[in-house]
Amino acid sequence: MVTAEHKENTPPDTYVIGVDFGTLSGRAVVVRVADGAEVAVAEHQYTHAVLDRALPDGTVLPPDWALQVPSDYVDVLRVAVPAALARSGVAPEQVIGIGTDFTACTVLPVLADGTPLCQLPGLAGRPHAYVKLWRHHAAQEQADRINTLAVERKEPWLARYGGKISSEWEFAKALQLLEEDPELYTLTDRWIEAADWIVWRLCGSYLRNACTAGYKGQFQDGAYPSRDYLAALNPGFVDFVTDKLKHPIGQLGEPAGTLTPEAAAWTGLPEGITVCVGNVDAHVTAPAAMAVEPGRMVAIMGTSTCHVMSSDQRAEVPGMCGVVDGGILPGLWGYEAGQSGVGDIFGWFVRTGFPAGYAEQAAALGRDAHEHLTALAAEQGVGEHGLVALDWHSGNRSVLVDHDLSGVVVGLTLSTRPEDVYRALLEATAFGTRTIIEAFETAGVPVGELVIAGGLTKNALLMQIYADVTRRPLGVIDSAQGPALGAAMHAAVAAGAYPDIRAAAHAMGKARPAVHLPDPERAAAYDRLYAEYRLLHDYFGRGANEVMHRLRALRAEASAHS
Amino acid sequence: MVTAEHKENTPPDTYVIGVDFGTLSGRAVVVRVADGAEVAVAEHQYTHAVLDRALPDGTVLPPDWALQVPSDYVDVLRVAVPAALARSGVAPEQVIGIGTDFTACTVLPVLADGTPLCQLPGLAGRPHAYVKLWRHHAAQEQADRINTLAVERKEPWLARYGGKISSEWEFAKALQLLEEDPELYTLTDRWIEAADWIVWRLCGSYLRNACTAGYKGQFQDGAYPSRDYLAALNPGFVDFVTDKLKHPIGQLGEPAGTLTPEAAAWTGLPEGITVCVGNVDAHVTAPAAMAVEPGRMVAIMGTSTCHVMSSDQRAEVPGMCGVVDGGILPGLWGYEAGQSGVGDIFGWFVRTGFPAGYAEQAAALGRDAHEHLTALAAEQGVGEHGLVALDWHSGNRSVLVDHDLSGVVVGLTLSTRPEDVYRALLEATAFGTRTIIEAFETAGVPVGELVIAGGLTKNALLMQIYADVTRRPLGVIDSAQGPALGAAMHAAVAAGAYPDIRAAAHAMGKARPAVHLPDPERAAAYDRLYAEYRLLHDYFGRGANEVMHRLRALRAEASAHS
Repeated sequence: MVTAEHKENTPPDTYVIGVDFGTLSGRAVVVRVADGAEVAVAEHQYTHAVLDRALPDGTVLPPDWALQVPSDYVDVLRVAVPAALARSGVAPEQVIGIGTDFTACTVLPVLADGTPLCQLPGLAGRPHAYVKLWRHHAAQEQADRINTLAVERKEPWLARYGGKISSEWEFAKALQLLEEDPELYTLTDRWIEAADWIVWRLCGSYLRNACTAGYKGQFQDGAYPSRDYLAALNPGFVDFVTDKLKHPIGQLGEPAGTLTPEAAAWTGLPEGITVCVGNVDAHVTAPAAMAVEPGRMVAIMGTSTCHVMSSDQRAEVPGMCGVVDGGILPGLWGYEAGQSGVGDIFGWFVRTGFPAGYAEQAAALGRDAHEHLTALAAEQGVGEHGLVALDWHSGNRSVLVDHDLSGVVVGLTLSTRPEDVYRALLEATAFGTRTIIEAFETAGVPVGELVIAGGLTKNALLMQIYADVTRRPLGVIDSAQGPALGAAMHAAVAAGAYPDIRAAAHAMGKARPAVHLPDPERAAAYDRLYAEYRLLHDYFGRGANEVMHRLRALRAEASAHS
Repeated sequence: MVTAEHKENTPPDTYVIGVDFGTLSGRAVVVRVADGAEVAVAEHQYTHAVLDRALPDGTVLPPDWALQVPSDYVDVLRVAVPAALARSGVAPEQVIGIGTDFTACTVLPVLADGTPLCQLPGLAGRPHAYVKLWRHHAAQEQADRINTLAVERKEPWLARYGGKISSEWEFAKALQLLEEDPELYTLTDRWIEAADWIVWRLCGSYLRNACTAGYKGQFQDGAYPSRDYLAALNPGFVDFVTDKLKHPIGQLGEPAGTLTPEAAAWTGLPEGITVCVGNVDAHVTAPAAMAVEPGRMVAIMGTSTCHVMSSDQRAEVPGMCGVVDGGILPGLWGYEAGQSGVGDIFGWFVRTGFPAGYAEQAAALGRDAHEHLTALAAEQGVGEHGLVALDWHSGNRSVLVDHDLSGVVVGLTLSTRPEDVYRALLEATAFGTRTIIEAFETAGVPVGELVIAGGLTKNALLMQIYADVTRRPLGVIDSAQGPALGAAMHAAVAAGAYPDIRAAAHAMGKARPAVHLPDPERAAAYDRLYAEYRLLHDYFGRGANEVMHRLRALRAEASAHS
């Protein structure tokens, strides 16, 4: 697989390290530059995991908070990187670069030298001093105001985010900091993505990556939201961009610097090797899955699904997460969309709807619950269960951008079985992906092919359903460590082993094309079920019946009352 | 409890027998005339139960068929009646009458002497020779034509049945017999309710009861549907009423005759005692629950729910099952409505949605699944689960009269637990009952009070939910054998022990009034949930979105295909 694009000045037996910082752990992979072979992997669980109930000192957190401890990330460098290297048998001198990817928007307040506020004396008990994890959802009130004001003022950047900014992103979380702990806000010199903070730890200097700046920081056409807008949000927020956020931006695959002596000591890697600009887990997976052509959409399917795709067309796709110039691949418009619940919904069903008799049967057959339900669900034809579901158990990210929506099952009868509902839920998530694809195409951005990455690729029935429902050939990434592989590929580019990420993708990327092909007959039957899904989608999701919002309000009142 | 109305000419220690013919068994109860004390009960399971897959000789039945074997009913007289009598210690000479109640419309073809066709030589392998049980649903095509034609011709009786005739009733089932086995139709001298056939077995003569004639035979204002109408349905059907159906009618609580020597031998009761006119299980329960005043609605809650109520107002209630002059109590308009799935839905949920962990916990606490889910569900406030469900897993009888509707759950999230869905299903059935009550009141028939009978009365949470949702005091019948007690009370009237069923109800009926009182705060919260239920009820049930019909059609196609 070594191609002509493999530069002659790179010795054949060189390696790069990719480090993927996930929600609960970090994984380091040692990757051969020549062909992308993953020669060793090591994982390190974060000591503090996610702080969603209390700080380490016992300080209780309100609902919807989700924090992390930045030293846990450094531990991944100290533990997982040397472990992977040792397992690989690769000599440190053979490693020419290190690249990283991170969850996003995962963001923290630091001093001018990069010290996280939570590490300062006396601040360990202050929630706002910690990293706010991507799924910290306590800034919804701020996000609502950000959106309302942007609509009122007709802010030009709003359409780049499908018409709605998320409470998960940099501005909402920073505004929450300002309004709830102004003292810490004042202390904050930089409001920085963890994706960039970890790169700073590696190379000793801060360079902001183009991906999170665009998708999570509303940086569009060279500018952030204006001072006027910020002042209207909150007078104290007027200098947020100039004082705390704005920073030189590095493009994806560029070097951010070289490995410091300190980081060399942590990792066991040679001082001075290339450290790549930071990146995001979903976005970095696109080239790992060889999706470097316009119109090849990658769906990273796990507990939730993230859709990333590059295009030479810039368009305003209603309900997308964002479109960013060079947000995935330099020179193309990078699109992101998502489904907030996918594997999480299947997991919920198994937890709450898998009867004892089924559990016994599954155990006797040596299957886990998902395997058992999938095998039973696979025995039926399309529509045979008589059901249609809405996959909104965790809200809806794209295209409705409404986290207060909830799940629905229609068509239940006295003969409905658990495998019927399970299959209807699998299908509902496929209908959700089709809805997103159609939103892109309606907006003039063609989606030609789907490549699936992530943990759910192992469910062949689910993959076939996606092929049938979307009427598209389904490729599958051929790596269990897609994000880490993608990070390593970017490191290879930054180190000069490839001229650009496209070349690296051709040499190092791994995808089996068209593994699942749509069946015309099943696809036709799914068209009918999808029509029902869309009818219910629009009825419950676009204001015809706001029952889900009212049920949620009633639930909140009743819970507060009891 | 012996009242002044207890006639002086009845010795104080006299008894009556009530026999309740259910779907799977018959129960005989020995009841003291003076005060309704149930001194002994005995049950006999039907040998052939329900024939819904094959005849006794192995002849396979199509889907939706449900037949029974008439000799099974006679076995109840032979076995259960003497067993109850023996247990009671009552001497046969102390018994002054016997009364019966039956499921309906359960109907069979017989010769002029009452011999069921299935007992004739050579006909044991002919499905149409057997009793068609109430839940035989294979005459839907005939019912559809009956309804369409009645609407076209503006038949006056249609409004007395809420605008729709059921496939379960006498005309649809008879038309199916004519069209599918004309030879047997010709052989049929009488098309007779099992309720009347069993009375014929007891007293040797056929008297048609006013209840089934009205509710199941479209007998209104002294007339059946016209010959013109029948001829338009099918030319061969023109003489159906005159030749096979029309027969002298006995009012409820009147004597049908006296016990024959043969029946005396079967039962061990004295020859010549009073045999009461036949009756129906739900309707006979009303006086047993002391519901003899206008506006006191009895809900008999089991696998399904039947609502019966008498009123001095005659009205056309959309979606009711029927209104019949003297259909429950002589001299009042008797109303019937129903919910086709209630306990069946809770049973389905426990069968399919009760996880292994819950089963272990329930076992450890010595609870069955329903008790466990009910206890957990009782811990939460109204609306705390964030759900609303439609209770149509078995279709909808009143007020939509559409058996192709299906169940819905809205509001599911990743934190939804089994007890949440279970509670939402309990509540949905209460909303269904409230919908029925409101249909009556909107049509000008006041519903003042609810009295609950049937197996579900033992679930106190369910009862409280019904009180809160309907904002009505809930009485509960104080007998585990409501129908048999009601049948016995009618026998007491027929035997002359009481002047009428009202007097018998005051002396022998058993209901604890106002056992569950509505709580104003919970009722207010339920008003909000009920509004959501009604919105979804009308959206899915009244044509705005026919998704359920389309899903059912797709299911049928897919099943035929696989």
